[in-house]
Formats: sequence, structure tokens, C-alpha cells
Amino acid sequence: MKLNILGCHSATPTENTHTTSQVLEVKDHFFLIDCGEGTQNQLRQQKIKFSRIKHIFISHLHGDHFYGLVGLISTFRLLGRTADLHIYGPKGIKDVITLQLKLANSWTNYNLFFHELERKKSELIYEDELITVHTIPLDHRVYTNGFLFQEKPGLKRLDKNKLRNYNIPHYDFHNLKLGRDLVLDDGTELKNEMVSLDPIPIKRYAFCSDTAYNESLVPLIKGVDLLYHEATFLNAHENLAQKTKHSTAAQAAKIAKLSEVKRLVLGHFSSRYRDKNRFLAEASPFFDVVELAADGKIFDI
Amino acid sequence: MKLNILGCHSATPTENTHTTSQVLEVKDHFFLIDCGEGTQNQLRQQKIKFSRIKHIFISHLHGDHFYGLVGLISTFRLLGRTADLHIYGPKGIKDVITLQLKLANSWTNYNLFFHELERKKSELIYEDELITVHTIPLDHRVYTNGFLFQEKPGLKRLDKNKLRNYNIPHYDFHNLKLGRDLVLDDGTELKNEMVSLDPIPIKRYAFCSDTAYNESLVPLIKGVDLLYHEATFLNAHENLAQKTKHSTAAQAAKIAKLSEVKRLVLGHFSSRYRDKNRFLAEASPFFDVVELAADGKIFDI
Repeated sequence: MKLNILGCHSATPTENTHTTSQVLEVKDHFFLIDCGEGTQNQLRQQKIKFSRIKHIFISHLHGDHFYGLVGLISTFRLLGRTADLHIYGPKGIKDVITLQLKLANSWTNYNLFFHELERKKSELIYEDELITVHTIPLDHRVYTNGFLFQEKPGLKRLDKNKLRNYNIPHYDFHNLKLGRDLVLDDGTELKNEMVSLDPIPIKRYAFCSDTAYNESLVPLIKGVDLLYHEATFLNAHENLAQKTKHSTAAQAAKIAKLSEVKRLVLGHFSSRYRDKNRFLAEASPFFDVVELAADGKIFDI
Repeated sequence: MKLNILGCHSATPTENTHTTSQVLEVKDHFFLIDCGEGTQNQLRQQKIKFSRIKHIFISHLHGDHFYGLVGLISTFRLLGRTADLHIYGPKGIKDVITLQLKLANSWTNYNLFFHELERKKSELIYEDELITVHTIPLDHRVYTNGFLFQEKPGLKRLDKNKLRNYNIPHYDFHNLKLGRDLVLDDGTELKNEMVSLDPIPIKRYAFCSDTAYNESLVPLIKGVDLLYHEATFLNAHENLAQKTKHSTAAQAAKIAKLSEVKRLVLGHFSSRYRDKNRFLAEASPFFDVVELAADGKIFDI
């Protein structure tokens, strides 16, 4: 997995900062998460091919998370896209996008599927041969979901050194990768673990923005390899965080600690703070495997 | 009048090009014309104070002319705007903006007035002490208007040299500026033109984008000081211009010639052409006071 931060600032784009959008690469899949105004330009800057994006996940319908979506949909059309596009987001997203396409008399020449969300419990919203995506219900001023991307376990790997000790026909290798035991031609019972290694460990990524401090996240994101958690404010504005249902850097770190995640990335910074290192300074007493997001930064998971 | 081009490219924003938006300054008034995605960033780049924009004119509801509007409206709110904002655009614009504000549960904390347009004849849509704005019905794939900005005539100016020959009380100066004749204390009849000069000539600016070649514009824009006319295509793609209801550079120049405008600025360029000078080359045989728009370029009118 590779996480490409296109924008990680709150509220409004400026000359040098971009609102929320990121691309999660999982093998050859490119999942777009949120789509603030200007996301299509950020995709170009990052040299991400538009045609590789087939699934877009929108956390909530505040402008800094989705005002770039209709423009991206239109640009896909202008680029001659033919592949299906799937959009997952709060109920209402279909109306607002289709109204704009209707007024412009510019229907897409590719299939556009909306998967509207309204459940307040975590649910499976996407699954393919490699990955599942579940919602992570968040606590914000409007209906909001984070998203948990989880790889499916791969096949077991064969231990070539141990394999040599047995006379195993090639056609049984796949059975071993599936975890099955074998009975060899000479009657030997071969337990799977005698010649196999565990699959490559799966990776899990959790995106949680925007949200107030919310311990009900903890069981949903337990032990993920990377947690992106919003940290709009610093301690000095904890009241404002509470009022606007955002988090401080320290609160994000507390959630990371409780969830025993492997690594925390902070984002969704308010533009009122010039020195972003203060977010690190306030988070690290609570959880020390913490980094700052930055527009254009890439995290290997 | 000063015309500040924020973006003058068609279809979709890219790393280096911006879709349609411009600011017309008339004394201390800042009129925003069209608002493609990213306009708020272009306003910042050009150091235009957001608070000075009180009237926004939207030609039509294609994305490259208005997908930046809802973001700008939201940013005004975040900046604590209190002044009224007036938006003039095709019927439907109110629904699409208010639906987005409703879904975000983010109503403006300033008054937002929509003036929806649906007439197919030119009409007066704005007037204050300095200026009038009329629609210019255009011929495009959806309902579209250009806009004619016209200064009101100022007062007549007094000719100080001639004034010395008469004994005119100061309180009559304003009557002279209003064009009135006077009868002086000694019974002399003083014709206004004996001591006055014409007012400073008024300026007129016409914005015409997007439109097919359309001679019905001519009477509406006759003799304007500056005509911004779309020139999406070159001659090689005249068929495409016809099909998509756009113009070529040559067609824009023909309209300028027929309209006897003082100066033509071409814009709304298709990204398929790298060398923009070809637009000039194809326009100038028909009308030679022609310039190219460019993002960030300022035209004094």
C-alpha cells in the first residue's frame, strides 16, 4: 500500500495549501479518498493517471472534502473515459452531482454509480479479490464516515528448502498454498506447516477525518498499520475543536495509542497555525510513532 | 475600467491553465465574471481582496464557468463576510448552490441573493450610480449570456479658461456640470456649451463567452471599448466549433469587425493548441486590434 497525500488542510484551499484528498494505491488499484476543490490539479501534479481511479470514497459533504468531485467527473468525460466510476458517499451526493450534470447538459459517457451511505454502524462497502473497505462512523457536524482499507490474506508461501525433503508433485503446490495437508504417494502424511510459510502479512489503512475525539473508533481501527487522523487544532483551541467537532493533535494521538496502531499520520490542519511542528510536539507525548501529512507527501505502508 | 483575467482556458483546469474567470474593476467596484474551479486561488494569486466582490455574473452552467462558485461562497463565510453577495446567472443556479450549502449544513452568515436569468433578449440586470450591466444573449449548447458593462455618463466638465470671461457664482457651477444654461445677474444668457466641456467619455466592456459565431451580437456590442470574445478553436477545427457551438479566432475577429469595437481580446482557448500565437495569426486578417488573454494578464480599458 502507498498513500499519496494530495491535500491535507482544512476549510479552504489557498495558494500553497490544498484541502482534503488522497490516493491509496493497493497494487494496481488507485482509491481516491475525498476530493476537495482543485483535486484534479493535484492529481496532475502527482502524475497520477486519471484513468486508474475507479472508486472514490467521500467522507462527508463539507466543501473542503468534496467540491472538487463534480469537476473531476466532468474532466473524466472530457478525457474520453469509458470505464465505470463508483462513488461512495453520504446520502445526497447523487442528487447534488446529477443536478450539476443536468444543468450543464453534460451527462457522462461512462457509467457513474453512486453508493449512498446512511448507516451509523460500520459496514462493508467495497470488496474485490485484493481488498475490503469498511466505513468507520465518525462524530462530526454532518453525517461522516472514515474508511478502513484492509488487504485480504494472500496464499501461504512454500518453503523451498523444506520442500526438497519430500517428493511432492507440482500439481499439489497450489493445495499447499491454500493451506491443505497432503498424503504423498508413499503414504506419508504431510502436514501443511511442514513445508509452508505464513502468507505475507496483510496491511490495513484507516482514514479518519473529520471527527471529534471519539473512542468508539478504537475497536474498528485496532492495530492498523497506518492511521490518518485529523488534527485540525492545537491544545490552545481545544474548546473550538469540541464546538466544531474536530480533534486536537493530542486527541488524535490518544486515539492512536488506545487503538495500538503501528503509525499515526496527522492532517486536516487549520491554516491558523504557521508552524506545523507544534502538532508533532503536542501529539508525541501520547504516541510517538507520529508524522505530519503534507500536500504531495507519500507514505509507504 | 480594468480587466483582470484570472483564467481564460476552456474545458478543464490543468497545472498551468485556469478555466474562465475574470474581475472587472470599475472605480472601487469589483465585478466577478464567471467562476471556474480554482477561482478563489486565482483571486489570492492576484491579490484581489475577497471582500471587494459584491456581484458575481455567471454566463452559463458549464463546469468550467461555475464549479468554483460554491467554494468561493463557502470561503466568504469562513472569512467572516457580512456584506451582501449578489449572484446573477441562469435559472437553476440557486437550486444547485443552495442544495450544496444545505447538504453541508453550512448556510452563509451573510445575505446571498440570487438573480436568476431566463430571458432570451438583452435585459438590464444591474444598475448603480456608476454603471449598468445588460445581458448579451449568446448561442451555446445551454442557456448562456454574455454581459455588457457600461459606465454612466459623468457630469460635464467646466472649461476654466472660458469660465474666467464671465462672472458666474460658484453655486451655479453644478448647474453647468448638469448641462444647464444660465441667465447671469447682468441679464446675459449663457449657453452651457460656452463654458463647458463634454464629460469624460464612458467606457464599455463586453464579455462574450461561450458562443457560436453569432451576428445578432453586433448591435448589442457596437463600438465597445473592449470585447472579450471566446476563440476556442482555430480554423482547422471550424467544424468542431460549429458542432459544439463555440467560435474560431477568425469568427471572433469577424464579429469584432462588424461591431466596430475598439479592441478585441481572445480567450477560452482549447488546450489542444500549444502555440497561442496561431489564434492571433488567424484573427488579425479580419481585425487587427487584437490581443490574447492570458491567466493573470491585466487589460486597462
